[in-house]
Amino acid sequence: MPTSKRSLTVADYLLQIKAIQLQPQNPFQWSSGWYAPIYCDNRKVLAYPTIRKNIINAFIEEFHTRYNEDEINCIAGVATSGIPFGTLIADQLYLPFTYVRSSSKNYGLGHQIEGERADKKDVLLIEDLISTGQSSLDALHTLEQHNYNVVEVGAIFSYQLALAQQNFSEADHTFFSLSNFEALLEKALTLGIINEDLLQTLQNWREDPEQWSKNHAPS
Amino acid sequence: MPTSKRSLTVADYLLQIKAIQLQPQNPFQWSSGWYAPIYCDNRKVLAYPTIRKNIINAFIEEFHTRYNEDEINCIAGVATSGIPFGTLIADQLYLPFTYVRSSSKNYGLGHQIEGERADKKDVLLIEDLISTGQSSLDALHTLEQHNYNVVEVGAIFSYQLALAQQNFSEADHTFFSLSNFEALLEKALTLGIINEDLLQTLQNWREDPEQWSKNHAPS
Repeated sequence: MPTSKRSLTVADYLLQIKAIQLQPQNPFQWSSGWYAPIYCDNRKVLAYPTIRKNIINAFIEEFHTRYNEDEINCIAGVATSGIPFGTLIADQLYLPFTYVRSSSKNYGLGHQIEGERADKKDVLLIEDLISTGQSSLDALHTLEQHNYNVVEVGAIFSYQLALAQQNFSEADHTFFSLSNFEALLEKALTLGIINEDLLQTLQNWREDPEQWSKNHAPS
Repeated sequence: MPTSKRSLTVADYLLQIKAIQLQPQNPFQWSSGWYAPIYCDNRKVLAYPTIRKNIINAFIEEFHTRYNEDEINCIAGVATSGIPFGTLIADQLYLPFTYVRSSSKNYGLGHQIEGERADKKDVLLIEDLISTGQSSLDALHTLEQHNYNVVEVGAIFSYQLALAQQNFSEADHTFFSLSNFEALLEKALTLGIINEDLLQTLQNWREDPEQWSKNHAPS
């Protein structure tokens, strides 16, 4: 898939504020346990009002391009990172907002879905990041159990892992992202943040992140 | 404290969308275990764009009334309910936003404070609801441990429990809320949602919520 102007611009934002960091020589350990040459913390976007606004505007443009009038009548967010971005999108579109907690917690009087409305069930589900897609799909299935129609999942960034495509295909759902791994590599190369050698390392990682992790785990 | 026009308007919003429910005859059990004649779920505000916008506008007015230019350079939110409201306030004010997770969880590569910036540490901390004040004060102390200056805590609603005042005084901090228990009772009485008998029950609850809970626990 060719990199779009927008995907390069958003990659540039994420690099500027170090929301995305590349350290092939000194891998990060993800919360899943995997070692990886890249780490993406889109929550940093929240701390930069101009970049935050530009990213929300990109979501709004994408929204109007992708969906018909009235196709979506509610924005949902995956807790916690999807909440702030989803809220800002809902605000711009003047739509209801709802959020979905992960299923592993205990809520007291609370609900797994907050801000539910029986008449607003056609949702775009917002996530900050797609890695394997699992947390988005968990939230999506929770929404479906509550009779929501999840039209699509939208994220700021996708690592473009084969596993994410596979997981979404198996669930018979689709997602889009404002930027992605290919755009990131192109922008990082242009800016001189990585050279051709590191580019190869990052591409190797994306081909098989599990094997890469095994090869790069500290002994 | 006399009820202000705004506190009555916000109470009206919360009653309209059933974010606040009054059931003296059929008490709610709060997540703390207490039985209470009132339950407040401000997350419902998120599902109603006009009321959501009006509540954010009320926060913005309050902000400009309370703080000097540059006194606050960051908005923080208590996870999870404070995140959507805090984000919208930060968006209106064009300020950085950061959020604080409760201390009892495990974050993997994440942080207890998300979206930190070393140069933006003078915060207004947003919470949806003040009951005992404990969750706000936990978040406040987490921020202080990370060298933030928490100017104040702001919430949509306060039950006006003596315990909240006591907890905030002991911590040497203050909070404000857009609406409160007194305004709620006044509005609910005007609207005929409660009568003088139920008003008395609700006032008794607020005088001593712990004893009221004991007296009304199912046997």
